[in-house]
Amino acid sequence: MNKEIPYKIYLEESEMPKSWYNLRADMKNKPAPLLNPKTFEPMTYEDLRPVFCDELIRQELDDQTAYIPIPDEIRNFYKMYRPAPLVRAYCLEEKLQTPAKIYYKFEGNNTSGSHKLNSAIAQAYYAKKQGLKGVTTETGAGQWGTALSMACAYLGLDCNVFMVKVSYEQKPFRREVMRTYGASVTPSPSETTKVGREILKKHPGTGGSLGCAISEAVESASEREGYRYVLGSVLNQVMLHQSIIGLETKAALDKYGVVPDIIIGCAGGGSNLGGLIAPFMGEKLRGERDYRFIAVEPASCPSLTRGKFAYDYCDTGMVCPLSKMYTLGSGFIPSSSHSGGLRYHGMNSVLSQLYDDGLMEAVSVEQTSVFEAAQMFAKVEGILPAPESSHAIRVAINEALKCKETGEEKTIVFGLTGTGYFDMVAYQKYNDGLMSDYIPTDEDLAVGFAGLPIVPEK
Amino acid sequence: MNKEIPYKIYLEESEMPKSWYNLRADMKNKPAPLLNPKTFEPMTYEDLRPVFCDELIRQELDDQTAYIPIPDEIRNFYKMYRPAPLVRAYCLEEKLQTPAKIYYKFEGNNTSGSHKLNSAIAQAYYAKKQGLKGVTTETGAGQWGTALSMACAYLGLDCNVFMVKVSYEQKPFRREVMRTYGASVTPSPSETTKVGREILKKHPGTGGSLGCAISEAVESASEREGYRYVLGSVLNQVMLHQSIIGLETKAALDKYGVVPDIIIGCAGGGSNLGGLIAPFMGEKLRGERDYRFIAVEPASCPSLTRGKFAYDYCDTGMVCPLSKMYTLGSGFIPSSSHSGGLRYHGMNSVLSQLYDDGLMEAVSVEQTSVFEAAQMFAKVEGILPAPESSHAIRVAINEALKCKETGEEKTIVFGLTGTGYFDMVAYQKYNDGLMSDYIPTDEDLAVGFAGLPIVPEK
Repeated sequence: MNKEIPYKIYLEESEMPKSWYNLRADMKNKPAPLLNPKTFEPMTYEDLRPVFCDELIRQELDDQTAYIPIPDEIRNFYKMYRPAPLVRAYCLEEKLQTPAKIYYKFEGNNTSGSHKLNSAIAQAYYAKKQGLKGVTTETGAGQWGTALSMACAYLGLDCNVFMVKVSYEQKPFRREVMRTYGASVTPSPSETTKVGREILKKHPGTGGSLGCAISEAVESASEREGYRYVLGSVLNQVMLHQSIIGLETKAALDKYGVVPDIIIGCAGGGSNLGGLIAPFMGEKLRGERDYRFIAVEPASCPSLTRGKFAYDYCDTGMVCPLSKMYTLGSGFIPSSSHSGGLRYHGMNSVLSQLYDDGLMEAVSVEQTSVFEAAQMFAKVEGILPAPESSHAIRVAINEALKCKETGEEKTIVFGLTGTGYFDMVAYQKYNDGLMSDYIPTDEDLAVGFAGLPIVPEK
Repeated sequence: MNKEIPYKIYLEESEMPKSWYNLRADMKNKPAPLLNPKTFEPMTYEDLRPVFCDELIRQELDDQTAYIPIPDEIRNFYKMYRPAPLVRAYCLEEKLQTPAKIYYKFEGNNTSGSHKLNSAIAQAYYAKKQGLKGVTTETGAGQWGTALSMACAYLGLDCNVFMVKVSYEQKPFRREVMRTYGASVTPSPSETTKVGREILKKHPGTGGSLGCAISEAVESASEREGYRYVLGSVLNQVMLHQSIIGLETKAALDKYGVVPDIIIGCAGGGSNLGGLIAPFMGEKLRGERDYRFIAVEPASCPSLTRGKFAYDYCDTGMVCPLSKMYTLGSGFIPSSSHSGGLRYHGMNSVLSQLYDDGLMEAVSVEQTSVFEAAQMFAKVEGILPAPESSHAIRVAINEALKCKETGEEKTIVFGLTGTGYFDMVAYQKYNDGLMSDYIPTDEDLAVGFAGLPIVPEK
């Protein structure tokens, strides 16, 4: 059955998935519904319409339809950078002298540098189809903002990005990529929104936060004719679009008769992890096949490993709906780390439910060990990984080293979500031996937990 | 014959070329030999041994062998990022509303961000095979230094890069990528070499130049046991290794029965252009098929379009051999531009000979028009191109627009040599409307020409 495995398994364009896979359809324990932050009632389609695009709300609320066709226009865009390669990490295996077989799905082969583009083009497409003029969003590390600006440039849609001010200043190149794609980029907090002005009044010198940027983007979208707000992670619609990662991975493995034992992904809001594991988890839920799934999160922001499974606000500003999820509390401020894409207090509700049901494992790792893995990987595999992605590399290496001890020939698949070209400040710190680790104390976590909303039992 | 053309034509690993193609073997007018800068006699194998690796000297001097096998170790490295995709630019064609069919060979799918890696791994491999401890080189824009540091990390070879000081300071992220790969990076001029100290004494505040960095790298290699100097362009050995670009391009086109009319590449020292056109030019030289070839150079550094075909020094320091080439004179200082990779006073001798024989065309373009093309390309094709590569994009667009006027359905192929992730300062200048063009006057050129060496006729 096994053909010789190439370094990179590329699917043909004709083998690219024609539908996204909605994992919720196969879950017995469905994720809990979003709640209205004022009434604590489940959010309805109509509740969400002022903020989100119509079709995206349908996708957000649909936990029944297993396969949702990918429109041709989106498939054509995907063809510019997909199918993404599934790489057999021969050189890493050799370096580790492990009997394990390691594969990674590489999502960094596009200018946005990450998997975020998979959902950005879908969200921009539905916004365009609805006849909207533009979309607003927030960005922290900048990958999502970049992806969205690319998608909007392609479709001729206006794109307004609120970028956390400290990132805006520290990552001028990220900002310039977005501007090159025609997006307007506003440092947040800004004078352009009510909530921004209020925050600036209270905290004149603040560098901003993701929570604040979300609030500004939401306000900006709701107050302008023909605009809606879009989001790059956490939501179920994002998970749905990202299922293309897992579907392609599975198709490529199936082509060569390879069955993974362990599937590993980094986990911030969950967009990559959820997308990668979706079709495999579907098999597990349907009792067809068993896999180990490992979510890897930073020790500085351990929502799965140290958080609570509870209803919480999705944003720091508490204007967004409540989601039932593993959370550190929307008031938890993760210590500054070099994996901005993983600095989120909560976790997508589907992944949270699966984790709570014991269907998935989670581990947390410290950033110096992550950069050590990143550098080793870069040297032997030739790709400079994003710090976020490198969390998965770290644990893949750990698992491969366990195989070395036991002699087991396990097959390990991990998601390499993106490249680190815009993270060289972090690499520089690591190269200079100046990087440190931050692990919140129980007291730090208690502050976040204290702010969890009290939701009346139904 | 024509199958439906996918957006990206990927070859199988088994279809990857097994040999490099040495275009010189098919040339009737061979390029003139390198001359010893002191005696003006042709450089021999022994003359070159103190500076270059043995096997690379053989390749440099061999103008007879058409196909040189690629060692398995190099092929295995290539497999980490090759075969590189040949992309059908459907979206660009649609944007331009042209009947032309546009393809580009994309060489930016690796962490070094450019085609330079194709020769870096070959040069590092032969150095390692010779039992050397390490290699030295210079880098300006940083693509070559990055590529070499990746190749050396893979092979466990020491890598010392002399980086033009102004780039070292302005492109700290490039520097950090090299350091992440374990290379030592020294700003040039430095106190570590005799030539560096002399220059610093004369010009205490200088930002350095490529010519100075070459001199330091050559000195550093010659004075240390177990070290040799390597170079990323201009030399025939580099052109040979880069032929993999053209061979893959041709294999991919042949697979779909596509015959190009026009082949376009940007031209600095000639490494990419020479590699891309090699097998096609071979057919033309053998009278099998005709193509138009267009070399695109910056108007600020127009070696083909405004230079002289003469023997000249390859470096500003005049320590390297003389090469017969189109040159602006080794004393010509190109005005600062955002395409550091094209700021070279000369041109590879093979390409110079072909151009002189009327087998290839050349045009020069100004940088604002190049960035205009780059931005248009980025928006529709989703890849943020390097400024150097964007010279080829500019002329491909110009040719496609001519087809629009005439209605001709020409097939245009161009080389997209790399990505622009480390060129955001340039994009920022363009986005802010602050970019200007520099065209040397005839008086500027006269200064360079005046310094051309007087070589006795044989």
